[in-house]
Parts: sequence; C-alpha cells; structure tokens
Amino acid sequence: MSELFETLRPHLERRFALENALTLYGWDNETLAPKEAMENTAKIIGTLSAEAYRALVNDEVRSLLEALSMPKEFDALTIMEQCIVKKLSKNLKRLEKIPADEFRAFSELTAKAGSIWAKAKEDNDFSAFAPTLKEIVSYQKKFAAYTKKPEISLYDAMLDENEEGILTRELDIFFEKIKEDVIPLLKKVVAVNDTVDKEYNYQKFPIDKQKEFCRFLAEYIGFDFARGVMAESAHPFTTNLHNHDVRITNHFHENNLESAMFSVIHEGGHALYELGVDDALTLTAVGGGTSMGVHESQSRFYENVLGRSEAFWKPIYEKLQNTYPEALSDIELSQFIRGINKAEPGPVRTEADELTYPLHIIIRYEIEKMLMEDLISVDELPRVWNEKYEEYLGIAPKNDAEGVLQDVHWSGGAFGYFPSYAIGNAVAAQIYAYMHNEVNVKECLENGNLMPIREYLREHIHCFGSTKNMNELLIAMTGEPLNAEYYTKYLTEKYTKLYLE
Amino acid sequence: MSELFETLRPHLERRFALENALTLYGWDNETLAPKEAMENTAKIIGTLSAEAYRALVNDEVRSLLEALSMPKEFDALTIMEQCIVKKLSKNLKRLEKIPADEFRAFSELTAKAGSIWAKAKEDNDFSAFAPTLKEIVSYQKKFAAYTKKPEISLYDAMLDENEEGILTRELDIFFEKIKEDVIPLLKKVVAVNDTVDKEYNYQKFPIDKQKEFCRFLAEYIGFDFARGVMAESAHPFTTNLHNHDVRITNHFHENNLESAMFSVIHEGGHALYELGVDDALTLTAVGGGTSMGVHESQSRFYENVLGRSEAFWKPIYEKLQNTYPEALSDIELSQFIRGINKAEPGPVRTEADELTYPLHIIIRYEIEKMLMEDLISVDELPRVWNEKYEEYLGIAPKNDAEGVLQDVHWSGGAFGYFPSYAIGNAVAAQIYAYMHNEVNVKECLENGNLMPIREYLREHIHCFGSTKNMNELLIAMTGEPLNAEYYTKYLTEKYTKLYLE
Repeated sequence: MSELFETLRPHLERRFALENALTLYGWDNETLAPKEAMENTAKIIGTLSAEAYRALVNDEVRSLLEALSMPKEFDALTIMEQCIVKKLSKNLKRLEKIPADEFRAFSELTAKAGSIWAKAKEDNDFSAFAPTLKEIVSYQKKFAAYTKKPEISLYDAMLDENEEGILTRELDIFFEKIKEDVIPLLKKVVAVNDTVDKEYNYQKFPIDKQKEFCRFLAEYIGFDFARGVMAESAHPFTTNLHNHDVRITNHFHENNLESAMFSVIHEGGHALYELGVDDALTLTAVGGGTSMGVHESQSRFYENVLGRSEAFWKPIYEKLQNTYPEALSDIELSQFIRGINKAEPGPVRTEADELTYPLHIIIRYEIEKMLMEDLISVDELPRVWNEKYEEYLGIAPKNDAEGVLQDVHWSGGAFGYFPSYAIGNAVAAQIYAYMHNEVNVKECLENGNLMPIREYLREHIHCFGSTKNMNELLIAMTGEPLNAEYYTKYLTEKYTKLYLE
Repeated sequence: MSELFETLRPHLERRFALENALTLYGWDNETLAPKEAMENTAKIIGTLSAEAYRALVNDEVRSLLEALSMPKEFDALTIMEQCIVKKLSKNLKRLEKIPADEFRAFSELTAKAGSIWAKAKEDNDFSAFAPTLKEIVSYQKKFAAYTKKPEISLYDAMLDENEEGILTRELDIFFEKIKEDVIPLLKKVVAVNDTVDKEYNYQKFPIDKQKEFCRFLAEYIGFDFARGVMAESAHPFTTNLHNHDVRITNHFHENNLESAMFSVIHEGGHALYELGVDDALTLTAVGGGTSMGVHESQSRFYENVLGRSEAFWKPIYEKLQNTYPEALSDIELSQFIRGINKAEPGPVRTEADELTYPLHIIIRYEIEKMLMEDLISVDELPRVWNEKYEEYLGIAPKNDAEGVLQDVHWSGGAFGYFPSYAIGNAVAAQIYAYMHNEVNVKECLENGNLMPIREYLREHIHCFGSTKNMNELLIAMTGEPLNAEYYTKYLTEKYTKLYLE
C-alpha cells in the first residue's frame, strides 16, 4: 500500500463527494425542482462547483499527484490507483489553467441556461436563448484556449474532453466515410419507404400502460430496480450517484408508441454500463463509464442493434399487442419490425431512425466546428442549421423549436459532445461484429434471455469503469481500434435486407 | 457595509451550500433513492458532513466571528447580519467541542440508520434496530456532554438544540398542566365517543383521486407549486432547499380518507412558513424557520385549528363529496366534522386525534429523559413504552412495529425533538387566541379565502425566518411568552362543544 496514495485519499473523497452532490442537483433540476427555484439554486451550485474545483486545484493535491507520478512511486500503485493518478493529473492540469472565478461563473451560468433554453424552445424564440448561448460559447472558447495544446484547434480541445485522442482529423475521415456510404443508401431506401405503413404507431397509447410496459422493458434487459430509479423529465437521460444508484428518465407521448419504449431501452443500455462497473472502483474517480462514445455504444447497442431486431421482439411482441389490443392486434410482428426501422428524413435528431441519425450528427459537427473557428456567429445558427438540413436530409425544420433549438446540449456547455453519438453507433457495430464469436445473440434474444449478452458486455466493457479508454477496450475485444467500416457495413446490410431485397 | 462581514461571506456561502447539499441527499433518500444505494451514499454524506463541519469549524471563521462579536463591529451590522453572527457563533462553539471524526462517523451512522429502522419496523423486530440505536444514543450523549453548560443535564442540552431556552424544568410544568387538564377531559370524551360514527372514513378511496384532492387542498391553503414540490415517502415530511424551493411529501392509504388529507394540510402549514420567509434572508443561515416548536405551530395551526373546523370545510365539503360520492354522499357535513375530531386513544402518534396527541408526546418525553439519565437502557425501551401507553392511554400496542418502532426520529439522532410537537400545539392555540383581533378567521374560512390568514402569519412569523426566536415572536404578537393555558383552554372548549354539550 502506497503511503502517498493514502495521503491523497481524503482529497479524492472530498472531490468525489462534491462532484456527486453536483450530479444530484443536476438530476433534481431536470426531474423535480420547481420552476422558480433555479435563480437561488444556481448560486448554491456555483458555490459547490467552486469547492469541487478547489478540492482538486490546490498545492497539496498538486504536489501529491506529482510525487505519485514519479516512476518509482507510480509503479508501486495498483492499476486502479495508477488510473486515478493519471486521470486526476490530467484534470488538474486542465482545470488549473482556468481561473477559479471564471469556472464558478460558468457553472452558475449553465445551471440556469437549461431553463432559459427550455423556455425559448417552448416559445419558439431563438433570440431569447441567443445571449445566453453567446456567453456559453465565449466561456467554452476561453477555456479551450487556456487548456489546449498549442498544436490543436479550439474545437479539437473540446472533442478531446469527450473522447480522448479523437480529433477533427480523425472525425473528418470518419464522417466522410459515413456520408459516402449512408447518403446513397438512404436515397435508395427513401425511394421505397412509402411501402412501410406505420400508422399504428400514432394511435392512442394510454400513458399509465406505457409506463408499465417501459418498466417491464427495463427489467427485461436487466435493469436492477434495487439499485436504480426511473423518473420523468423533459428529455430522457441517464445519470448516477455511484454503481448502486443509477437513474434513468423517460418522457411519454400519448400518440407515439415507439418514443418511450426505445428511450427506456436506450437509457437502460447506459444504465447497465454504470451498474456493471466493478465494486472495487465504486466511489472513485474511475468508477463511471469511460467516455461519452463508449457510453453511447452501450445505449445504441441496446436500442438499435438489439431493440430494433426481430429476435428481440419475438418473445415479447404478444405481450405488447395485449397491452394495446386496439392499436396492435392487427399488426403482424413483421410489419412492426419494418415500422420501427422505417427510414425517413425528419427534422428531429432524437426521433431519427438509425439510418438518418448519423446525418443529424454530421450537421451538428460541422456547425460546431464553424462556430468554434469563428466562421459563423451564434446569431447565424438558425440560418445555417436550416441550410444544412436542406443539404443533408432534404427537409426544412418548420421553426427553430424543431430546428436549432431542439437539443439541450449547448445550454450545458456541451460542445464536441455530439460526435460521441456517431462514435457510439460505430463502436456498437464493431462490438456486435465480434460478440458473435462468444455469444449466440440471436438465440439469446429469441429465448427471452438477455443475461448472457449483458454478462458479455459487463466482462469486456462495463466492469472496467474508466480504467481503460475506448480504443484500449476495442483492441482487447476486437483486436483493432475504432473502425467505421463495421458501422456502415451494418447499416448497409440491415437496410438492404429490410428494404431492398 | 462591514468589511469584516464581507470577509466572512464566502465562508457562509460554503457552509450554506454544503448543508444544502446534505438536505438534498436527505430528501432524495426519503423519496427516491433505490434501496441498495445507502451503503455507498452514506459515505458521500459522511464526507460532505465533514466538509460542512470544516466550513464552520476553522481558525479563520472563528477569529472572524470573534471580531464581529465585539461591540463596535457588532453594532455596525444590520439586524440580519447580527443574527447570523450570533447563530453561527453558537453553532461554532457547540461544534468545535465535538471531534471532527466523531461528527463524521455519526453523520454516516444516521444516514444509514433510517433504512435499518424501516426494515426493523417492517419486520416488527426491535432487536434488529437496537444495536444501531444504542450507537446513536451513545453518540448523542457524548455530544451533549461535550457541549452542554455544566449546570444543565444531558437531556436539557438536547432540548435546547431544538427549542432555545426550553429545559426540562419548564417542560415538566408544561406537561403537568396538560396532563391535569387533558386526562380528565379525555375520560369524559371517551365515555361518549361511541356516539360518533366514522365508518365512512374506512371505505375505499382510490389513490389517484386522493392525490388530486390533496393537490387541491395544498393550493387551497396557499401552497405555491411554482416554488414547491409534492412527492411521496414512507412518512410525510417537509423540507426545503431555500424559500423558492419548498417540498412536502405525503403517503396514501386506500382505506383511509383522513390520513393523506390532514397530512397535506399539516405539511402545507410547514411549507407556508418556509415559503413566507423574506427574500432578503434567502440563502443565509437565518433563512429558514426559527425552531421546531414554531414550525410545528404552523403545521398544527393549519391541520387542526383551521383544518378540523367546520368553517374550513363548509365551502369545500361538497367538492369532497363529489370526489367520493359512493363513500360520502350520505354523510352530512356535521357528521364529517365530528368524525375528523373523534377522540379515541390509539397506539400510533401520527394517527392520533388532537386530544390524545399530547399524551403521545408526554410518553416520549418521559422515556427520552429516562434514557438520557441512564434510568433505562435501549433494550428496555419496548417494555417501558408499552407500560406508558397502558398508563396514559389505557391501551397496549399489539407489537413493537406499532409501539416503540413507530417513529423515525430516533434513527436520525433526534432526541429532545418530540416536545416540539406539543410546544407547537400550544403556540398555535396562543396565536389563534390573538389572531382574532386582526383577522376574522371564521369568515375567511367560510368564504373560502384563506389568504388573509396566511398573510397575517407571514407578517408576524414567517417573514422573520430565524431572526427571532419563539418567545420573541410570541411576545411581539401576543404580549406574552409561551403560555400553555391557551392550549388547554382551546382543547377544553373545542371538545366540550363537540362532545359534552
């Protein structure tokens, strides 16, 4: 046991506890807090953020981390301790370049910005959000400028925050490959997609029944309610206090069957990741999922790869029909499967099918890059947004609420985050391609026994928390780093089979 | 503006934010957290408690508070600042006598004890809770011994924590007066209480309708949902993050009409207090209710003095009948009023009527006193509990779950808290006696306009937060300090009129 590390431990505990409290406030604000609370609560969050900052950025922690990073000390640490020292040293180096008062002001700003955005979206009024967004963009640019390596761009620094080592250079290639394969495929599919009748999806589905069925789905994929919670929020999300307290939200629409069902499978995928982290890592800085991209690979794997397959629904489709006999008794399983996979360009990312989805991400990626390179201003966002939708998806959002205001992310300062969604899809496809060597996925699904799938993911991904990064996990599992080929191949095969054969 | 106070301000903000986070964890644990979360979450709470402790107990804050307490500096402060300095100096003097590691261990212990108690109650197994309770009692005795003035007893020190300046000497007299008046009155009432038929109360009341009606009641008394939240928990309670985020819980029983209705009026009374604190005090150490006793006076005033009166129900009884036509269409308002005031000794405090209620408190007061004076041990609690119930109420709890395990308080370390409930009743009666000079309460109630009542309480009590203590508030309102006469007179008049005329 390293004495030095033991000296560091109380600092780690303080930092963890303060960040945990911020997570709890975040959860509470999204799911419960009354609307007039925010002005005051934001100040409390600002103070706690400043505390969390100081718990890491101080001379004692700095010198302990430096000492622990010296080869002699470092080599004597356990793997977990080494990962903690590496991660915190990186965080510290980044944070100490940001002035404490700016960090605090930014925390207060983003704590309030969510409700400003929500109101602007509700009122379909981009100008009400623009001043706040300008402030956020300005802080994020400043922070990136303070912290980035000289050889990379501001936007690269933001990308690196979300997915270590993935820069615009890689992403440009990655997205070009996707555009090259997906755009022509989508054209072919759209030409025949009026053969898919999914009117059934827009009948009336009573919300109490939806809640009950979604709870069933969560348990079916392996979500553990003794260690998890399900609540409601404007947009579904997953968060957790630790691996014994993992929380997902959902949002229900009476006239849409798919929306809440695929949300719960998606968030459930995120949750299984956090629930599967090894207990030895609990309450440490490496006790959560390793990156946004890998997280999204788990949610997308459950939602799309498993959840939109015929094998997944075979054992439970009758239960679904019995839940909504009026809407579904005449709908055959095969029609339902075609319905939930219908590819159709639309204005809203969260409602997009698997095939058009990456195009929504590409639009955001290109816009964020331009914004951070000062090629466009915040005020130009609505126009540029609509032009890109026209270009890539051939459609025009009918207003800013379903256009540039649709996503919450920017209000939280999350730039460089969207690409993780596409990376996640690609990782999911790559995992899927190799998983077959060890697990008969189709058979598991058809037998209604999803546990071998969860156990495989737990063993190869979940249990490691953030002690391994994306490419380390992928190389160990599949023998190669991220490779977009699997993703475009998966999409091509799936949509060819569904539509073009 | 005092420069010294400005130097103190960031410390105040840190302390406030950390305590606020602990409040949020407390709320979350009671209303939502999954059952297997507690082991880990308790550690986080322990760390944050230690931080909150250190935010106050440190050399810098100590010397600032000392300097600010010097007459020249103190006199230059605003009233609010003076109250903050006085309150924190008192807290600091108390806390710095408790070793930090013991304080932290105690916080972790009580964070877990709630679920241990709940399980023991569910299993009707006192022995499963006893070891934890022994630890809690032992800590509380130690803490009281560290902090108390030499001339007072351990239990006096605990009482003083809950209601400044109210010691066993006063309480013995207070409770003797109550026993003297209430016990003979109760005997007379019980002799005729079989004339009250309240069978209607135990019919079937669908929970969704109860929820809807309780929401109506909350709004009816003036609870503001833009600044408040209503949720569910095992036992109803009120908490708040600040005066723009006040939260109440409720618990619903399908076969009991009264339970949830009077809980929401009770918790609503607590909530109106917190919502009514002046905005100038928000996010400060004096921005909440001043004491448990005054808090309980507000909840009891709404629940009993207003909520169980005929005038309260006159304008809304028809709505209640229409909500549950099967159970209530044949029940006249007069029978309902007698029903909700039926006096009947029972084993459970939270279900007690207004007349037997103080006897439940007296039992707890006497037991706590004995426990803290080492006249009984934790293991003897079930026996002593049952004997006292036999003595004062003439009944025997059928098991420990409805006996000694019924209340959550001791699991949180709250000894010396129960007397506040009786004090609150007495304060409510005293306020009521004087309120008539300014507000025609009966007319307000009969017109369904409760706002003048809330405004009166806001002006004389709520707005002050904890800048005035109980007796200061009472003297300003009624010209005299707490006087139990009003309470026994109120009970005697009310029950004589209902039962004995």
